[in-house]
Amino acid sequence: MIAVETIIHVLDLGGTFVFALSGAVAAVNRRLDVLGILVLSFVAGNFGGITRDLLIGAAPPAALTDGHYLLVSVVAGLITFFAYAGVDRLRSPVLLLDAVGLAFFAVAGAQKAIEFGLSPVMSALLGMLTGIGGGMTRDVLLAEIPQVLRADLYAVAALAGASIVVLGDRLGLSYGMSALAGGALCLGLRFMAIQHRWRLPVAHLSAQGRAGVDRSADEGPP
Amino acid sequence: MIAVETIIHVLDLGGTFVFALSGAVAAVNRRLDVLGILVLSFVAGNFGGITRDLLIGAAPPAALTDGHYLLVSVVAGLITFFAYAGVDRLRSPVLLLDAVGLAFFAVAGAQKAIEFGLSPVMSALLGMLTGIGGGMTRDVLLAEIPQVLRADLYAVAALAGASIVVLGDRLGLSYGMSALAGGALCLGLRFMAIQHRWRLPVAHLSAQGRAGVDRSADEGPP
Amino acid sequence: MIAVETIIHVLDLGGTFVFALSGAVAAVNRRLDVLGILVLSFVAGNFGGITRDLLIGAAPPAALTDGHYLLVSVVAGLITFFAYAGVDRLRSPVLLLDAVGLAFFAVAGAQKAIEFGLSPVMSALLGMLTGIGGGMTRDVLLAEIPQVLRADLYAVAALAGASIVVLGDRLGLSYGMSALAGGALCLGLRFMAIQHRWRLPVAHLSAQGRAGVDRSADEGPP
Repeated sequence: MIAVETIIHVLDLGGTFVFALSGAVAAVNRRLDVLGILVLSFVAGNFGGITRDLLIGAAPPAALTDGHYLLVSVVAGLITFFAYAGVDRLRSPVLLLDAVGLAFFAVAGAQKAIEFGLSPVMSALLGMLTGIGGGMTRDVLLAEIPQVLRADLYAVAALAGASIVVLGDRLGLSYGMSALAGGALCLGLRFMAIQHRWRLPVAHLSAQGRAGVDRSADEGPP
Repeated sequence: MIAVETIIHVLDLGGTFVFALSGAVAAVNRRLDVLGILVLSFVAGNFGGITRDLLIGAAPPAALTDGHYLLVSVVAGLITFFAYAGVDRLRSPVLLLDAVGLAFFAVAGAQKAIEFGLSPVMSALLGMLTGIGGGMTRDVLLAEIPQVLRADLYAVAALAGASIVVLGDRLGLSYGMSALAGGALCLGLRFMAIQHRWRLPVAHLSAQGRAGVDRSADEGPP
Repeated sequence: MIAVETIIHVLDLGGTFVFALSGAVAAVNRRLDVLGILVLSFVAGNFGGITRDLLIGAAPPAALTDGHYLLVSVVAGLITFFAYAGVDRLRSPVLLLDAVGLAFFAVAGAQKAIEFGLSPVMSALLGMLTGIGGGMTRDVLLAEIPQVLRADLYAVAALAGASIVVLGDRLGLSYGMSALAGGALCLGLRFMAIQHRWRLPVAHLSAQGRAGVDRSADEGPP
């Protein structure tokens, strides 16, 4: 029992760490100073869970009460600050760890929403939000359209993993089993998407529609 | 009684639907994929109310506990995805529905804040926030300055409608009456503003002031 | 005793006022209309405290229940609207007041977090957030990377001031004393940074690393 909980905590902190790395790398790329890098590390690593906790009414969020989350975020930020070139060269391992983090966050996020009594569909969506929220906030702070809304099945993989956990809960399976299955699905989807450049379809713009895109940005309902 | 509550719920969902359409159209215009479109639909349709609920301490927000809000948001997103050209051609009807949605959100948002014991002035402002918050979050996610802060009396109309509800509450009028009056005022203001291109004044920049605009963006207090 | 509380409240409102001025000036520079200016005033003056209150579970936030905060924000916005050139010419006094506001917010924010039972490290960080949160939200709404993450030790000064309060609390000093010391440190750091253009270091990009910056924006983990 203790072993399982320890594994879960380690995975959670591992997810925070790799997400924090992604925030720190993005901050370095925009030439933020060392404190800006640390802020982006913390935001990318923790704002998915923080947003989920605020939405389900679990204030103060775990990321503020358990100091380990801050610690691994700061460590990730400092490593990136002092060894940016090295971290940047580790692109493939980081992508791998990032997918592991996404899988864990989606699964754990869905489970926490279930425990707080949210409906199955909402629990799956909050699992997805836990996975993608940190990256979304990171990109909003950098004044960019969130990559997680556009990249290689990122949000889809999180949603799929979270849905398995919810489904398992409805079927009465143990959390351990459904978490494993959900995490594996999320991980698998994400890898296949990166490998084969899978993408979700975008809407079809007719010839007129395409001509109207710029116009509509100005004249649409605000 | 049941009839009134049903009408209110239908109007609320109708407002969510048209706001979700605006989010989906904006997402298509930025070439997000289908899941990005659905996320923007949900955000535009529901984040005004979600932000209000978080601020007044009503967690979890209604948009997360009542599945209808998610449903109409997803439907709006899918309709836009599969029939973007059609939705885009319906610009005028959507603008009309958008104004109806704004009116309803502003009125209902103010009433909920009153019920949670906030002061009259704050209740009116939270009504305005309920009306404009979804559009603001949508534009922030798309890395743009929110249109609702610049367009044709949009926020003003919401604030006026919400203020009528608050005033009616202070005068002891029934919610039904003041909601109707507030909604009509919001709707009327918005239509007149669109029709006659009414705008609020912007600040006067002196010759030196204007020259200083770019400079101040860099050197002002951060 | 009453005198101390009055002073604190006046300082708090003073900080709100100067932060609101910064929001209004930024809104005028982007040509927002008068309501957009007022929204930015309120956001810049109050969102640091509002975010802190939501995170520590103190809903509804003080900025929504005490009308004075709204009042001074609106006054700051209107002054800027009617006398932009004048406010813009007062750049140095506003920078001074802004530093005073930052010092007060950081100190008061840390103290409130301590009272709500957060850990010392988190209390110091929430003090920093109280100081920089308003400016961050202001810049996010204007679709820019927050200046507070890049400018002259801004966040560092806030963090230093908040840390002194936390340290004082651990050592059993009176809040008045540690608040004075923390505020003075924040103020002093900020002035030295402005005067001598002190900046925190940015990460070293190797030759390859620098070449990879644009690439990584596209290909990094989302």
